[in-house]
Amino acid sequence: MSKGVTPQSENFSAWYNDVVKKADLAEHGPVKGTMVIKPYGFALWDNVKFELDSMIKDAGHVNAYFPLFIPKSFLAQEAKHVEGFAKECAVVTHTRLKSVDGNVVVDPESKLEEEVIVRPTSETVIWAMYKKWIQSYRDLPLLINQWANVVRWEMRTRLFLRTTEFLWQEGHTAHATAEEAEAETLTILEIYRRLAEDILAIPVLTGRKTESEKFAGAEHTYSIEAMMRDKRALQSGTSHNLGQNFAKAFNVTFQNKDNKEELVYATSWGVSTRIIGAIIMAHGDDKGLRIPPKVAPHQVVVIPISRNDEQKESITKFLNPILEELKENSVRTKVDWREESPGFKFNDWEMKGAPIRMEVGPRDIENNQVVFVRRDTGEKSTIQAKDIVDKTSQMLSAIHDNLFAEAKDFMKSNTNITDSYEEFKKIVDRGGFIRCGWDGTSETELRIKEETSATIRVIPFDENPKNLKCIYTGKPAKHEVIFAKAY
Amino acid sequence: MSKGVTPQSENFSAWYNDVVKKADLAEHGPVKGTMVIKPYGFALWDNVKFELDSMIKDAGHVNAYFPLFIPKSFLAQEAKHVEGFAKECAVVTHTRLKSVDGNVVVDPESKLEEEVIVRPTSETVIWAMYKKWIQSYRDLPLLINQWANVVRWEMRTRLFLRTTEFLWQEGHTAHATAEEAEAETLTILEIYRRLAEDILAIPVLTGRKTESEKFAGAEHTYSIEAMMRDKRALQSGTSHNLGQNFAKAFNVTFQNKDNKEELVYATSWGVSTRIIGAIIMAHGDDKGLRIPPKVAPHQVVVIPISRNDEQKESITKFLNPILEELKENSVRTKVDWREESPGFKFNDWEMKGAPIRMEVGPRDIENNQVVFVRRDTGEKSTIQAKDIVDKTSQMLSAIHDNLFAEAKDFMKSNTNITDSYEEFKKIVDRGGFIRCGWDGTSETELRIKEETSATIRVIPFDENPKNLKCIYTGKPAKHEVIFAKAY
Repeated sequence: MSKGVTPQSENFSAWYNDVVKKADLAEHGPVKGTMVIKPYGFALWDNVKFELDSMIKDAGHVNAYFPLFIPKSFLAQEAKHVEGFAKECAVVTHTRLKSVDGNVVVDPESKLEEEVIVRPTSETVIWAMYKKWIQSYRDLPLLINQWANVVRWEMRTRLFLRTTEFLWQEGHTAHATAEEAEAETLTILEIYRRLAEDILAIPVLTGRKTESEKFAGAEHTYSIEAMMRDKRALQSGTSHNLGQNFAKAFNVTFQNKDNKEELVYATSWGVSTRIIGAIIMAHGDDKGLRIPPKVAPHQVVVIPISRNDEQKESITKFLNPILEELKENSVRTKVDWREESPGFKFNDWEMKGAPIRMEVGPRDIENNQVVFVRRDTGEKSTIQAKDIVDKTSQMLSAIHDNLFAEAKDFMKSNTNITDSYEEFKKIVDRGGFIRCGWDGTSETELRIKEETSATIRVIPFDENPKNLKCIYTGKPAKHEVIFAKAY
Repeated sequence: MSKGVTPQSENFSAWYNDVVKKADLAEHGPVKGTMVIKPYGFALWDNVKFELDSMIKDAGHVNAYFPLFIPKSFLAQEAKHVEGFAKECAVVTHTRLKSVDGNVVVDPESKLEEEVIVRPTSETVIWAMYKKWIQSYRDLPLLINQWANVVRWEMRTRLFLRTTEFLWQEGHTAHATAEEAEAETLTILEIYRRLAEDILAIPVLTGRKTESEKFAGAEHTYSIEAMMRDKRALQSGTSHNLGQNFAKAFNVTFQNKDNKEELVYATSWGVSTRIIGAIIMAHGDDKGLRIPPKVAPHQVVVIPISRNDEQKESITKFLNPILEELKENSVRTKVDWREESPGFKFNDWEMKGAPIRMEVGPRDIENNQVVFVRRDTGEKSTIQAKDIVDKTSQMLSAIHDNLFAEAKDFMKSNTNITDSYEEFKKIVDRGGFIRCGWDGTSETELRIKEETSATIRVIPFDENPKNLKCIYTGKPAKHEVIFAKAY
């Protein structure tokens, strides 16, 4: 079947590549590692963006835009930060091309005095501005978000999961106290959890990252981690408490209520186009995507089944008021009038993961009904025309709940508790999350990673290390943690 | 008055810089020529974006995202195109930094084999993709738009008007026939006219660009041109018919209905953050911005006038249902509770150009009324509480109409018809548009530009060159054109 995809069980990675391509989500761009997000993939991202943007704004943040270019010296200002990004920076060194013997070459005379870095993230350029904007406690908190592209020159790339350029939102806040900054970090983590679970139907683990897994320049990092259908983890959003590190680097102080100068406290946090990868791999099956209804570009795809122009016309007449009513109820619909067979269209929209397929043929019209097919279960039902709006909203909601429940069951049944390193290794081999004790040292973490490729995804908020032993050293556990192989 | 701005009549350019700064729209970024769009400025851009995006989508286009990075060889593919952009390209040559003796330097070993250009516009990368996506007439038309940042390394920059990096939408369409491409180019020009006139209340001239003013790589370019309050022109949107130039450069052919291979026809078109400059300079006055209501971040700013907590509370109680009702009617409101004097707030929101100021004090509450002040005219009126929603919508609409009428009168009274080059020069000196004959040669155009700095803004659609003589050479006019000094 030329239209199919490699089964997940056969080769998950090939399945992923097939689905991204056949569902028309994205392609590689001409420069190595870059990505073209095609219209269907972009509509999906735009819906995710809309939902997340609303949540961020409701929590009191405003959007702004900071420059793509950062002076090299700025990036170097915070030692850990530059260390973290030095190996993957796109560096602009010249500003002109010229023609030499018919070839277009870089004009050596246009060399910049100071090289410019294409932002890998915007802490440094933003904190250079915050220094100008913050004088007193009255200027705080400063709660700013931006939607932007960033660049990290990755060696091994994968569409959506790891690309040289990606799209994201990055929030950057400034606070008067350590407590406020910590509260903000957790507020955002909760927004990310709601995005994943309530909007994308992806259950996530939340918790803190270890020292070796935290953001370069942060005091500590929180993240949401989801389980993909190959039982590997995907970090889907991170929220960093930056303490006073960037305030120190850029000398950003404020006058507190007692008229004393203090360094400002900071957070930063981001969700990127990587989350599209999570949607694909948390819900997809061997027929293709299963897009969670709340962000589906088309929640209901209508397949008219007609043999001639007369039937076409009567279907159009039958559909118009229905489509109008669905639109009024904020349901996103699409009628597929392409000159292809119904079978082709069924497969195509299964591949593209539209939550509901509505089939309408001449006999349906006679009976004043349509046929609904759920993408998640394949279940068919006949719906009376008058019930379409109600049934649609119920079914979309049921699909969301079912996708969430399925993914939650999957994560639960593939999360293991063990205190034996032998078993640990077996579980890592067959895939899944492992909850176990860890002695809290980076050495142990590194050895386990070297021996098994598994890393600590989070120290979960509900950890209970009491009486636990480290899975590797057998020493008393400092933390209960979640290990997994990750993307 | 420390809060004021330089009067327009004294120094228009200083006035502009003052307003951008004091209305909190934008600032310069650390890398020369870059711009930080502050939250208030970004909210304005976001509203413009929302309106334009809706119009573009309603006309059948979809959004996508193409990479920031373009291989140097791609840019060089279309000769005129690379010529047009060669002198202002940000070139990425390296991908790593390293630490040497405590200094962060570019790692010479990370030099790229082929340099990468930061997109100045995306024709080349998009047409390289279109080559893969287009096979037959069934794949046409392809109507894609993207919202993105682009980079042109400008020597002389000005916030919003000319910046090294700016935000824009760029549409790129592919068609089966020259006629369709031309129709698309004009459809978009009409959308841009509607954006300017119906949304932003800025009257514009529409027409075709001359050969020397057209886009690098286009067959011809159309534009909308607005008159700023210093009587100079600002090009505010352009729509290009690219003919088969890019299809040739990237060898993009399609099988037509007769099974013959043909080159595809193309258009591209864009509106950028430059249009924020048009809003500022078409409507602003000596008190600051006057933002057209349809894109104002806050259409109604409420200034509560209270002396104590008790009054504050009663104002809040009085306002809540009113704000709720305004919100239900899609009016964007903001209550300014800052601890500043009412006078300070009046000035501040005049500077920021909020269309309506609503004042509410204890006596107003007693009388169940509020005071409205129009930003455009300064007119005050007392409004009964029950009438607020109706009056708001009427007043916003009246403000739009008045801003448009004012700007239209201004453009009309500063547009001159002449056939004397002596008078032409005088008009250019005092400012304004000139409608006159032109012999159609680039030589004449260039000489006039050198002697007066005026350029041909457009060949208007309603030109009537019959019986006209060229303003410069006295030869029979080939076109009737609009000259002006431009931004």
